[in-house]
Amino acid sequence: MKTSIATVCLAGTLEEKMQACARAGFDGIEIFEQDLVVSPSSPAEIKALAERLNLSLDLYQPFRDLEGVTEEVFQDNLRRLEATFQLMQQLGMDLILVPSNVATATVDDDAVVAEQLHRAAELAARYDMRIAYEALAWGTYVNTYWHSWELVQSANHPNLGVCLDSFHILSKNDDPSLIPEIPGEKIFFVQLADAPELGMDLLPWSRHHRVFPGEGSFAMFEFMAYLTQTGYQGPLSLEIFNDVFRETDPDITAVDGLRSLRWIQQGARGLLAKEHPFRQILTPMPKVDPIEVIDHIEISTDVPDRCGALLGSLGFTFVGQHRRKTAQLFVCGDVKVVLTPNRAEGTFITSVAVQVANSADALARAEALGATPVSRPVTADEARLKGVLGPGGMQVFFIDDAAAAWPEEFGYDATNQDNTSSHVRLDHLNVPEARDHFGASVLFTRALLRLEPLPSQDVASPRGLVHSQVLQSPDAGIRWVFNQVPPTYTNRTGEPVRYPGHIALAVEDIETRAQAAIDAGLVVLPIASNYYADLHARFGIDHETLQRWQSLGILYDRNAEGEFLHVYSETIGGLFIELVQRIGDYQDYGPGNAAVRLAAQDHYEQHHRTKR
Amino acid sequence: MKTSIATVCLAGTLEEKMQACARAGFDGIEIFEQDLVVSPSSPAEIKALAERLNLSLDLYQPFRDLEGVTEEVFQDNLRRLEATFQLMQQLGMDLILVPSNVATATVDDDAVVAEQLHRAAELAARYDMRIAYEALAWGTYVNTYWHSWELVQSANHPNLGVCLDSFHILSKNDDPSLIPEIPGEKIFFVQLADAPELGMDLLPWSRHHRVFPGEGSFAMFEFMAYLTQTGYQGPLSLEIFNDVFRETDPDITAVDGLRSLRWIQQGARGLLAKEHPFRQILTPMPKVDPIEVIDHIEISTDVPDRCGALLGSLGFTFVGQHRRKTAQLFVCGDVKVVLTPNRAEGTFITSVAVQVANSADALARAEALGATPVSRPVTADEARLKGVLGPGGMQVFFIDDAAAAWPEEFGYDATNQDNTSSHVRLDHLNVPEARDHFGASVLFTRALLRLEPLPSQDVASPRGLVHSQVLQSPDAGIRWVFNQVPPTYTNRTGEPVRYPGHIALAVEDIETRAQAAIDAGLVVLPIASNYYADLHARFGIDHETLQRWQSLGILYDRNAEGEFLHVYSETIGGLFIELVQRIGDYQDYGPGNAAVRLAAQDHYEQHHRTKR
Repeated sequence: MKTSIATVCLAGTLEEKMQACARAGFDGIEIFEQDLVVSPSSPAEIKALAERLNLSLDLYQPFRDLEGVTEEVFQDNLRRLEATFQLMQQLGMDLILVPSNVATATVDDDAVVAEQLHRAAELAARYDMRIAYEALAWGTYVNTYWHSWELVQSANHPNLGVCLDSFHILSKNDDPSLIPEIPGEKIFFVQLADAPELGMDLLPWSRHHRVFPGEGSFAMFEFMAYLTQTGYQGPLSLEIFNDVFRETDPDITAVDGLRSLRWIQQGARGLLAKEHPFRQILTPMPKVDPIEVIDHIEISTDVPDRCGALLGSLGFTFVGQHRRKTAQLFVCGDVKVVLTPNRAEGTFITSVAVQVANSADALARAEALGATPVSRPVTADEARLKGVLGPGGMQVFFIDDAAAAWPEEFGYDATNQDNTSSHVRLDHLNVPEARDHFGASVLFTRALLRLEPLPSQDVASPRGLVHSQVLQSPDAGIRWVFNQVPPTYTNRTGEPVRYPGHIALAVEDIETRAQAAIDAGLVVLPIASNYYADLHARFGIDHETLQRWQSLGILYDRNAEGEFLHVYSETIGGLFIELVQRIGDYQDYGPGNAAVRLAAQDHYEQHHRTKR
Repeated sequence: MKTSIATVCLAGTLEEKMQACARAGFDGIEIFEQDLVVSPSSPAEIKALAERLNLSLDLYQPFRDLEGVTEEVFQDNLRRLEATFQLMQQLGMDLILVPSNVATATVDDDAVVAEQLHRAAELAARYDMRIAYEALAWGTYVNTYWHSWELVQSANHPNLGVCLDSFHILSKNDDPSLIPEIPGEKIFFVQLADAPELGMDLLPWSRHHRVFPGEGSFAMFEFMAYLTQTGYQGPLSLEIFNDVFRETDPDITAVDGLRSLRWIQQGARGLLAKEHPFRQILTPMPKVDPIEVIDHIEISTDVPDRCGALLGSLGFTFVGQHRRKTAQLFVCGDVKVVLTPNRAEGTFITSVAVQVANSADALARAEALGATPVSRPVTADEARLKGVLGPGGMQVFFIDDAAAAWPEEFGYDATNQDNTSSHVRLDHLNVPEARDHFGASVLFTRALLRLEPLPSQDVASPRGLVHSQVLQSPDAGIRWVFNQVPPTYTNRTGEPVRYPGHIALAVEDIETRAQAAIDAGLVVLPIASNYYADLHARFGIDHETLQRWQSLGILYDRNAEGEFLHVYSETIGGLFIELVQRIGDYQDYGPGNAAVRLAAQDHYEQHHRTKR
């Protein structure tokens, strides 16, 4: 479908917004009135800029409080409307959004409203304009899409149709299943917005906390499937009022927005029967089979010696140097880690490689999601890994059979591996994200790898709340945790440099493993006694066990499904490694323990580290 | 009253929090369990630190989900409770908070709950501990303070009392007028929290958006007056869960918190009859008479020439240099501005001087509100202005009769002033505040000068939303606007350096004034044509008027009370000057026009300025 976005979604001047939309690849935009009013560019200049950028100007919005008013007020409204049509003529636009009246409506009479809408449509017809009438969720008298559709039918004018906005319908739990009864050609415009469950009144929720489809909790695929069944062929547009977007580089926001439109169309395709006549309206995304295995993780480090020692203490075998480059391969059980030295840039996860059936498909899907392809310089006889750069700076590589032999370049021989570590798996990885990249990174990773979000959590750190989002593959083969880092952990360009990411290894004998690792030189993150006193108070665990755990740095949680033991290594730059043992069907991450870890890391950073 | 604060209000480690509380001057603290659990310091170390810092440890909290449970669960709860009492013994504490059960309650039977509370109190008595039982607003069965008080009466144990929390009472519009019926000695603890109206569910509202008394919209003075009537003499404590506080320097937060406790006690004194027996429990603040006049404003600038020219073009007379210093006095009508040169620090309002009856009283009040006195070096024969440094870095000086002669040091002769500018007054001033100072600055200024807040507004700028709060004196002699600036306008230490403050002069003939100023060299902020087209569409104003206004940079607004015309100067560093004309009883600030101004300044900054 044709893609569009309201300028109010983005930060910057109107020109900056338009340029960002064009660069991201949108087909068109909605002009938000206030963006034009405050712009130094004339309507003619905006029209010319749109033409140069190849952006259609799809909708002028909003024209407020038109209908349901006394005749005297309506006369003035028609005057306002005519002035707006004249402005739209200068812009070369022909569609205006009229949301239902929230401020001046005094006449709760559908006949009057329909008649006023008809007269407005008559005026529109004289200017070759069309009106899209939208029920705001908090409209005084008109606040459901079905009511707006009834009024449009009564008004019965070719220049009048409805605008459907997913927020106004789904925020109040209105039933979207009647949408297919509206003929597609009478839906003049569609605005999409998602939102997280915040327990807020509709108006402040809508004004500050809308997000792109896929970044909230609404059933957006279903909404989109209902819409498709109408045969609507107009633009699919985004209208997001979001306080963070208003402070974010518009290029990030625009790319993220287009990604959400691709994602939602693909999702709706999945819900519609293959033979549905309108299914082909939805733009497909290159499909990938479910992805369940992380092939390897690459760590960039300015202290490869320390990183190697850390891996070694945890049971990783050093396989070898790359035959040509300085990269080193470490293996432990199913987990492969490539260490790549850098100069004074710190230590952090730089790429995640996943196993896919076909890397070309995965790459095409990633590109459809707005990611930039990345490649590594290789010689003709080396495996050519295909990958992309995600919105938060993380690279994702796709390993199919053609590329699977890459470890041999490090001298790796799969038939000759140590078996004692064979039951070590990757449990999860955790990456920090700055506030302005968080939503984009989560949606990108989710849409690319077909992961599903678990309920998000807030974790208290000594420097602010950390918002944590887990994405998980259907069989939980991949668990990818995103931590939105408070600004107190970021540098002046907003990168979360003072907040480490981590890799968690699943083991089946954590006490033995941790002891062996410590004996082999592992420095575990020290956990203070108060935590173990609390474990005793909460769970009644005996002091001997607690003492043993404390000596190993082991943390503990228990819920109805099972038990969880885990231990953190000290942090090197922006990375540490965690060992976890899940007992029973425990699926969580020790929710209370993340705060303990953050406080312990803060303390370690302030006290131990400086002693070195 | 004795002042206290929950450690959860503050960012940092437990030790950092305690040190900030002690520096701010709190008498005691509540230990929030999680802060202790994550702390590397042992209970004995915390006890010793509190003793050294002279902080009493007033309340250990929270002990969750004690009551209203089956006997089996209750047995385990008693085990948990006993372990907590043993921990409290190590801390030397004797009061624990038990909020009403929100998670495990299954027995909705007051008799059972009272019996369980009694047994818990029996256990407490064995440890010389006391239990403060608090109704959470979302407690499963117990969620009003009156219910908790009935249960405490039924349980009837000397070691059991209630805890009152203003948030849990006022957030759900519960009636606080029954509080005086609870005997003060059965109120074991009081927690105060305010909150802005956000239209949110109670739980997320409470967890993320509480603020200090005076920074939200609850009737806190009344609450405090009801509480005082009980004869309660325990600590007055703050329990604020706030996402911004969690990212803010704890010294800022602690000082702000203590300020709010001083403010609320003074406010409650005002509501109680002078002869009320318990009124003296409330700590008074030094009183000041209502303040209505800003005596002068001081501008620090690295371009005194440009600033002087700007003032001159607007009709300011240069009175003279200070007899000894490089400062310059400019006067226009009732408005006095002192320009003080600096070296390369930019241009900004550095102090505001208000006229008071007695500067010593005002200074004492400011110091009671946590402000640091500031003084300027003077010689023996010069006026000694008394002032303080506010939390956002603004200095406030107090001018009484003894200091009123300060302009003579600039050669000023009140009897020999130009009368043509005599009807120019100061309309308002507007100062930018970083997010972590905003609440503190507003409360400080409000409490110091006895100003009242108007409803706050959000203004869209090209770089993010600006949150705007007006404070106004009873007769509107002082209008002080605080703008909370998005991080996109701040430097790396969080100062709002890229967002200018301004001074607005009220005139009665804005078109003449603006023209004269332009003729005298004023560069007005150019406002683009789209804005005037919109004025035409909205208000039907004729094109000739609009053209004249545009040539003068005049913006316009109209509401039911009157009309508003205003014009902005170009920005110099961090300052510009506005002329405003209010017609009729117009009291607003042209709400839509602030966004126009911000966009125009953004454009000017990017385009015009670079041409110089």
